[in-house]
Amino acid sequence: MKSFASDNYAGVHPEILDSLAAVNEGHAVAYGADPWTARAQEALREHFGAHAQTFLVFNGSGANVLAMRAACRPWEAVICAQSAHVNVDEAGAPERLAGVKLLAVPTPDGKLSPEQVVALLTRVGDEHAVQPRLVTITQTTELGTRYRPQEIAALADTAHRHGLLLHVDGARLANAAAGLGTGLGAITTDVGVDIVSLGGTKNGMMLGEAVVILEPALAEGFRHLRKQTLQLASKGRFLAAQFVAMYEGDLWRRNADHANAMASRLAAALTGVSAVRITQEVQANAVFAVIPAAAADRVRETWPFYTWDPQSGEARLMCAWDTMPEEVDAFAGAIAIACD
Amino acid sequence: MKSFASDNYAGVHPEILDSLAAVNEGHAVAYGADPWTARAQEALREHFGAHAQTFLVFNGSGANVLAMRAACRPWEAVICAQSAHVNVDEAGAPERLAGVKLLAVPTPDGKLSPEQVVALLTRVGDEHAVQPRLVTITQTTELGTRYRPQEIAALADTAHRHGLLLHVDGARLANAAAGLGTGLGAITTDVGVDIVSLGGTKNGMMLGEAVVILEPALAEGFRHLRKQTLQLASKGRFLAAQFVAMYEGDLWRRNADHANAMASRLAAALTGVSAVRITQEVQANAVFAVIPAAAADRVRETWPFYTWDPQSGEARLMCAWDTMPEEVDAFAGAIAIACD
Amino acid sequence: MKSFASDNYAGVHPEILDSLAAVNEGHAVAYGADPWTARAQEALREHFGAHAQTFLVFNGSGANVLAMRAACRPWEAVICAQSAHVNVDEAGAPERLAGVKLLAVPTPDGKLSPEQVVALLTRVGDEHAVQPRLVTITQTTELGTRYRPQEIAALADTAHRHGLLLHVDGARLANAAAGLGTGLGAITTDVGVDIVSLGGTKNGMMLGEAVVILEPALAEGFRHLRKQTLQLASKGRFLAAQFVAMYEGDLWRRNADHANAMASRLAAALTGVSAVRITQEVQANAVFAVIPAAAADRVRETWPFYTWDPQSGEARLMCAWDTMPEEVDAFAGAIAIACD
Amino acid sequence: MKSFASDNYAGVHPEILDSLAAVNEGHAVAYGADPWTARAQEALREHFGAHAQTFLVFNGSGANVLAMRAACRPWEAVICAQSAHVNVDEAGAPERLAGVKLLAVPTPDGKLSPEQVVALLTRVGDEHAVQPRLVTITQTTELGTRYRPQEIAALADTAHRHGLLLHVDGARLANAAAGLGTGLGAITTDVGVDIVSLGGTKNGMMLGEAVVILEPALAEGFRHLRKQTLQLASKGRFLAAQFVAMYEGDLWRRNADHANAMASRLAAALTGVSAVRITQEVQANAVFAVIPAAAADRVRETWPFYTWDPQSGEARLMCAWDTMPEEVDAFAGAIAIACD
Repeated sequence: MKSFASDNYAGVHPEILDSLAAVNEGHAVAYGADPWTARAQEALREHFGAHAQTFLVFNGSGANVLAMRAACRPWEAVICAQSAHVNVDEAGAPERLAGVKLLAVPTPDGKLSPEQVVALLTRVGDEHAVQPRLVTITQTTELGTRYRPQEIAALADTAHRHGLLLHVDGARLANAAAGLGTGLGAITTDVGVDIVSLGGTKNGMMLGEAVVILEPALAEGFRHLRKQTLQLASKGRFLAAQFVAMYEGDLWRRNADHANAMASRLAAALTGVSAVRITQEVQANAVFAVIPAAAADRVRETWPFYTWDPQSGEARLMCAWDTMPEEVDAFAGAIAIACD
Repeated sequence: MKSFASDNYAGVHPEILDSLAAVNEGHAVAYGADPWTARAQEALREHFGAHAQTFLVFNGSGANVLAMRAACRPWEAVICAQSAHVNVDEAGAPERLAGVKLLAVPTPDGKLSPEQVVALLTRVGDEHAVQPRLVTITQTTELGTRYRPQEIAALADTAHRHGLLLHVDGARLANAAAGLGTGLGAITTDVGVDIVSLGGTKNGMMLGEAVVILEPALAEGFRHLRKQTLQLASKGRFLAAQFVAMYEGDLWRRNADHANAMASRLAAALTGVSAVRITQEVQANAVFAVIPAAAADRVRETWPFYTWDPQSGEARLMCAWDTMPEEVDAFAGAIAIACD
Repeated sequence: MKSFASDNYAGVHPEILDSLAAVNEGHAVAYGADPWTARAQEALREHFGAHAQTFLVFNGSGANVLAMRAACRPWEAVICAQSAHVNVDEAGAPERLAGVKLLAVPTPDGKLSPEQVVALLTRVGDEHAVQPRLVTITQTTELGTRYRPQEIAALADTAHRHGLLLHVDGARLANAAAGLGTGLGAITTDVGVDIVSLGGTKNGMMLGEAVVILEPALAEGFRHLRKQTLQLASKGRFLAAQFVAMYEGDLWRRNADHANAMASRLAAALTGVSAVRITQEVQANAVFAVIPAAAADRVRETWPFYTWDPQSGEARLMCAWDTMPEEVDAFAGAIAIACD
Repeated sequence: MKSFASDNYAGVHPEILDSLAAVNEGHAVAYGADPWTARAQEALREHFGAHAQTFLVFNGSGANVLAMRAACRPWEAVICAQSAHVNVDEAGAPERLAGVKLLAVPTPDGKLSPEQVVALLTRVGDEHAVQPRLVTITQTTELGTRYRPQEIAALADTAHRHGLLLHVDGARLANAAAGLGTGLGAITTDVGVDIVSLGGTKNGMMLGEAVVILEPALAEGFRHLRKQTLQLASKGRFLAAQFVAMYEGDLWRRNADHANAMASRLAAALTGVSAVRITQEVQANAVFAVIPAAAADRVRETWPFYTWDPQSGEARLMCAWDTMPEEVDAFAGAIAIACD
């Protein structure tokens, strides 16, 4: 089966599998005190700067919840877009496990602006109201759009000016950097981001994410938080091996470039289908498009994909590291025929 | 490096790696709705009974916390041995994430008795006191001992008679079953256990544990709990593939038998060293023994292992699925020489 | 000092103080097992029906958080108006202490509709999304408006049809009933409400609220929840004495009628001031009105009141059980002069 | 009814009632920004030092949970005596609401020692283990004993030397100070205590406790914590009025002296009853004594009191501010007759 449902429907890149096999030799100290974890941390310092502190975890929700727990005291709150994964797809973990209130802002394209952040700062110091402490943005966003470096810099400046911190949910950070033609540091460290959830799974890993801490104060006690939040792997070398394979070289970029290119190819093909309307600018590996319901249902039998908005019929079409050009063409062709 | 530090210092069994590679074909529905997860669930039903409901998770702390969250309402408490992993090695996750109070009972060998459970039921209905709801035992225990089936049955009977449930932290359940010469169901389902944390990692998997629910009422909403507790893998087939390899055939037993045999071999060898005193009956893959401090420190340089009790000098010597007989002999020999 | 800032700026009604003195005789069993608590419970059964179960607590936030804790399992959510006290004025206690996510809906007048509730039920059964379980409305609302009985009945019907429950934050329930000319049961028990936070403090008590449980399933374990949520008074008779004074007779209605009448008087007086615009229908003891900023600031020096919306200059003018007609007239006169 | 069951069976001292009536004049700013709260804070500064910061709350469990929330980060733990109120009588609120693990130590007399604290500091920095942060002692203890100033100083020194803080659950702090013949500061501020739960209710108030912060760092954000923990009263003057009456003058000491004297009188009387054995030194307002079961049951019909340990028949006999000498004599006489 191949699909356009999600980049987490894809499997594992062969170089990742090879790396897992390569570290499977003899014993290694558990819980991350092994040499591969050290190598993964070093690889990520190359990307994020010498002061970046990396903590490997199991999944993206775990990374996000940890970022919130590290940043927020009990009465503090998190500002996010209403469409943010933390707000709509993490089963209430931010509230139940991190104990934070999310202040969610409607946006047309999944992107927060400094003005929206400032508008939520009207009750600073008021003990009856939660106190905003963390701004979280998703890069690329849940709507397939991406923030430009200067947009992130503006958000970071605004946050810092008001005593807030900036978190990036980077489940698809590689796709953003690839699309922008920058490195990972250029859209995080260099523009003032304080803490990052760095994705791996959607870009070809088996499982594993990293929390990259750029503001050193956030690292205090973080090891304890990670363990307590159930995100510390015992055989840590098998998370590390994946990060080594992905981030020591350019696998992260090759995979992301490819997935992005496939989305562009798909968008180009769909532009020729008059019944289909693309709803978001295609800036990474997702295409959002309104497809007539009957056509969508017919195509879905062969090529699974998700409806994003049941009311408008907007679909989310995701490309992955393993999406093939001929699959894109066949899929677009099937839509064209179904819409005919 | 090889060590006697922990069975989670060991790597991944080759059959597990093969299984991971075998499922890496094309796309699969994410979050556990894939055919391999179904196969893993079926395999575990063979072990635990047709009504067993299995939920794959990342790690043992995650499984244990989920069991507590499923069983306990906010004012309810968990009875455990003072040496229990949940009590001493999970960084307060039971209290912080599950919100439960642990009522921890001192034991000489890590094993709870029905009498100890009953002794804690003196304030039932008193709104000022937490209300015991779950008894949790570790099999094999943190001290390398194991419960016999009739001991578990007695605990289950006691628990149920007082409206409590019985959980087994089975991070090393395979070692217990192998040591007892029984199946997994014989020490869980058949003796009244309600919910199990079923280990995999320590017995040769890369990572992954399962919550096996035997009391159906505990399954209600459990999918939501798992997602919220950050324990739902997106590329679920790669957890499932490991369980398929481990539990469809007899890999779980082969690995456990081997590790247990190595511990017996080690205990036998150490019995001949007069300066060493074995402190717990060797019933699985661990040997607990008091070793003179100077000797222990010298041997540790070559063969890492942990001191369990710094005061008495008691060490925990763990054997794993990959411990070799000649390594056991060399290790025991090194201790003998160091003690000389 | 007298003010129009809040009904909790007012003191204690003399009949309440008398009742406190009257119960101060000898010893009484602590924690609510005293005869006055039984009398308070009986008095509230007269209002809310024979099956109503009442639990006295310290304050309104405590009552609201308890209602959420009683109704929601960990993955369940609460639907409320964006302006709801639980959403904006309880310092994140619903999220941090009850662990629930609030799904907050914008409204022009603080009132939820059944359509708004239904619109939030699109992901039922989806493990990634929180599951709505409780609808909470405030009566009278934070904007001084009130629900009519048939509006509440429609919300209760909608909630129950979808497996949800209905909670009323009744910090000012008395003002609503007085304004509608009904009893307390007519806007709760009789129209399908499941659980009520019943106010007392704002209507002339010293401190104390009650959780009134109308859906019996919610009462299970509630005593334990109350104790754990830090809301169980040791010398319970002194909460009870206030409820006895307030709800055995008609003090609750006398006080509410009076406060409502003062608000009507104030609204009538302000209607004659052309620079002032009343923004919400006056249905209880609050007047919401846009007052020119300079005028507002001048009047506030003598008669404190709160600005509700700093952008529009909308003020909230609250009347209390002890607001005097001549004070209303003087206050309205001062505004008229300041606006001149 | 008069009893020896608990000092919270007693009513309110007349001077407290008078103070409540005296502040009931006109409007006052809500939530503690009133002049009486300022006076209460000033009064407590007189006792605890110029830098003492006081926050009024509803009850003792609330004060204790707040102290833990202020002192502990999520992975930190609290050391207490096994008999501590926080451990056995707060329905799991420390674990569920503050999220802390309690490390409870058995003691013969309810008193912790520095050695016991140090013994729990074996895993500092180990991410798998909770990290002790707060030592909490109860003064007077739940067993009616009291710490001498130098004992508290030793605990504070030990705590501070290891980076821990010292909390005093002072539900009966007045009884301790009265018994020792010292001021309140002499057993808190002067001996290194960091934070105090200062009782009021059991010593003659209607309801209300205070958190007194002596280590300034703990005050940061405390107002937010108090509100979120549901412990902020709206009509704050009525908590403050009680503290003014109690702590501006010497009412706190008069009441405590009296209750203590009654306990001494009771103990002296019981010493003459050969069937009764006093089990703890009488150092405040409680007498612990083993009374033959049949006798205890007979006397209890007239004079309620609690059995502390059902196994040994040890009873807890509490005296209160309103216990009369003739009641003590009658009660002791009844016991003597019942034992005959």
